[in-house]
Amino acid sequence: MKGKLFLIGSLFLVSGLSAQTADEAFIRKIADEVLINSKAYENLRTLTKTIGGRLAGSPQMYKAEDWGYNLLQQSGSQHTFKQECMVPHWVRGGKDQATALLPGRSKKELDILALGNSQGTGEKGVTAPVVLVNSFEELEQKKDQVAGRIVFYNYHFNPTFVRTFQAYGDAVKYRGMGASAAAKYGAVAVIIRSMSHSTDNNPHTGAMHYDSAYKKIPAVAVGLKDADWLASALSGGKDISVSLKTMAHFLPDVKGHNIIGELKGTQFPDEYITIGGHLDSWDVNEGAQDDGAGIVQTIEVLRTLKALGYQPKHTIRFVLFANEENGTRGGNAYADEAAKNNEKHLFALETDAGGFTPRGFGFTGSEEQLKKMKSWAPLLEPYGGGEISAGGGGTDIGPIHQKLKTPMGELLPDSQRYFDLHHARNDVFEAVNKRELELGAVNIAALIYLVDQYGL
Amino acid sequence: MKGKLFLIGSLFLVSGLSAQTADEAFIRKIADEVLINSKAYENLRTLTKTIGGRLAGSPQMYKAEDWGYNLLQQSGSQHTFKQECMVPHWVRGGKDQATALLPGRSKKELDILALGNSQGTGEKGVTAPVVLVNSFEELEQKKDQVAGRIVFYNYHFNPTFVRTFQAYGDAVKYRGMGASAAAKYGAVAVIIRSMSHSTDNNPHTGAMHYDSAYKKIPAVAVGLKDADWLASALSGGKDISVSLKTMAHFLPDVKGHNIIGELKGTQFPDEYITIGGHLDSWDVNEGAQDDGAGIVQTIEVLRTLKALGYQPKHTIRFVLFANEENGTRGGNAYADEAAKNNEKHLFALETDAGGFTPRGFGFTGSEEQLKKMKSWAPLLEPYGGGEISAGGGGTDIGPIHQKLKTPMGELLPDSQRYFDLHHARNDVFEAVNKRELELGAVNIAALIYLVDQYGL
Repeated sequence: MKGKLFLIGSLFLVSGLSAQTADEAFIRKIADEVLINSKAYENLRTLTKTIGGRLAGSPQMYKAEDWGYNLLQQSGSQHTFKQECMVPHWVRGGKDQATALLPGRSKKELDILALGNSQGTGEKGVTAPVVLVNSFEELEQKKDQVAGRIVFYNYHFNPTFVRTFQAYGDAVKYRGMGASAAAKYGAVAVIIRSMSHSTDNNPHTGAMHYDSAYKKIPAVAVGLKDADWLASALSGGKDISVSLKTMAHFLPDVKGHNIIGELKGTQFPDEYITIGGHLDSWDVNEGAQDDGAGIVQTIEVLRTLKALGYQPKHTIRFVLFANEENGTRGGNAYADEAAKNNEKHLFALETDAGGFTPRGFGFTGSEEQLKKMKSWAPLLEPYGGGEISAGGGGTDIGPIHQKLKTPMGELLPDSQRYFDLHHARNDVFEAVNKRELELGAVNIAALIYLVDQYGL
Repeated sequence: MKGKLFLIGSLFLVSGLSAQTADEAFIRKIADEVLINSKAYENLRTLTKTIGGRLAGSPQMYKAEDWGYNLLQQSGSQHTFKQECMVPHWVRGGKDQATALLPGRSKKELDILALGNSQGTGEKGVTAPVVLVNSFEELEQKKDQVAGRIVFYNYHFNPTFVRTFQAYGDAVKYRGMGASAAAKYGAVAVIIRSMSHSTDNNPHTGAMHYDSAYKKIPAVAVGLKDADWLASALSGGKDISVSLKTMAHFLPDVKGHNIIGELKGTQFPDEYITIGGHLDSWDVNEGAQDDGAGIVQTIEVLRTLKALGYQPKHTIRFVLFANEENGTRGGNAYADEAAKNNEKHLFALETDAGGFTPRGFGFTGSEEQLKKMKSWAPLLEPYGGGEISAGGGGTDIGPIHQKLKTPMGELLPDSQRYFDLHHARNDVFEAVNKRELELGAVNIAALIYLVDQYGL
């Protein structure tokens, strides 16, 4: 094994190699460094097991910031800093509870989670009959039956989309806008079928927002088995009420931070390449795939480039963004600061789709740039990340893309398992595979290297 | 969702469609049928949870045969039969035990499993000093220190191979041939570092064989953490003995069966396409990924083609092979029977690399045939299985490839997690993801459809 690595390293010394061959050799070095010496998995263990869930404003947010700052420094950052931003401070406030009340006084506990940013019922709770709707269209048809009731949105994740993020894009509007759409017709609360096609009953939380034109009613997600049960009972004509109690509410905004490390550019120190994920997570899990994986991959790319003695042409920024889940305040602050300082940003890449086996990258930029990205596919294919497709970016880098027209991209790992655990209790360290996580870092490092070498 | 499916279905009715478009549409129908209505995951639950491990010759082997036979019939097989073959009947015979004895009377239990087909120590056990070798080369260097001792092969899985099967191919000779290589120099037993790069300590069993020129000495696999501990202690110069007790032995061969279902060809009923996996598994786990996944995928392909009313041109055989793990008797019997009956076999495909997200297919045939396979890649890419590469097949279809020159192929799923659980206790139902399993079936069904339509 060692002999082989030395051989690959020595290829660089042979003069007259084509750029393609030198790139191949350097990317092989990246892969060997990560696959042999990666710290990503153990770093993820620390983040998830000693800090855990780290929603914006929570005590764990600050612990994670300090952990990230120190780890960036240990991993070779030449300039490490905290970029301040005010973040929302939503708290769950207690255990979310829901009980279905059936005819004949029988009861069934439902496994629910209050949606992020939602207003709770308070101690008194809310008890009301439930109206089933399978879509917004059906809500319109039933709008006269909604007043004083709880609307249950039972919109299913579409299993026929092979990329599960398409199913998410299709369904997430019910989580985001369902409460206000129902409040418009006088509903007193909403229950949303979880955005998932898992085989378990874990409810999946996630951000929602209220339309200020309507009353802020409580909103919860229910697990899939309970959703199926509830839908089946209601479809069968049973009158079912649900008694809900959630204590969710906002506290005043607090200071949070993007945590940023840099490798200084040797030729263009004032031109930036950004790679990042988000440091915050939901409160109900360890935030392992979402987005602990992206965080430790980002730091692993830094560690690897440093370990290989790579001196980038451009300044590479490694950004642990604040508050992706329920506010995007970190992403906005990063873009605002870049605009204020007239920074030139070459490219921004986000890793926030889980630490699963990489399949490729999504890219949002010009046709010409996309063509260039695609020309690198053969260099990434040996490591699994060669599928380059149009579109994609990330919540945290969206603002800089908007504001500065920075081309953006995202790692696209295999998506089959992501929505089994996204925003649910089972997004824990054990759900991450060491090698899958590492291969993501390999492909990101390779792409960042290519962008640094050749621009876009 | 429904609307969309009907639209796709109706495409078939429009005249003048190109073959490519009709193929795209039919493969979309396959995918929708599997992703919406698949029985594969629940079938796997039954196989793993109600039957469990099913090594050749075990009572569970017979239960699995009956289960498979009935399920093939329920899934639409037009002709279902059992093909008899004698299978080896190796039994573990009791709990495998190993204790490291350190200087100063301290002890450490090691987590081991006897290798399949190995001869146990018997009740008396074997206790001897351990000699560490990291390779066969090192065994040669230390051959004079081996007599009367236990050889510990500490050859590592190479993490730099991106496809983990390469690391397996590189390392597996120590499991297969290590015992006889050490017995040649008088060793009394061997301990093999498990063929894995998992992060746990589960030992991984698997088949070995003895060279009849040397004494049959006991052979066990040790978990990776214990292997690291043992290697570290021995490298540090400590004298360590290990006390081994394994009760493994062979009983007389018994009757086993390949379980076979067929969809009859409408144009070429005497020309066969084979798709299969193996029904047996190791005794220490549920055989979920290896190869329960392949079995339920094979049956799912049948169910799906039947559900879509597909009438194949050629006869498609769905084969649940016997005794892949420690004898290949099923694969040999299938080839022998085909040869005896002068059967014409167009293609054989095996799925025995786990029910993980599909990435492509390996193919062994002529250049011309490989080119044809590759021309279908764009039809498979939307479902993840578009990477067509040269080489590959399967243990069970190797004999028919050898004997009848039948072109052969294999599903190549993502390989990162396979050797975390291969032949280890943790290869259980919970290690399989429903959608990943289903997407494998989609790609197999699509490829079988294309081979049936266009030949090779």
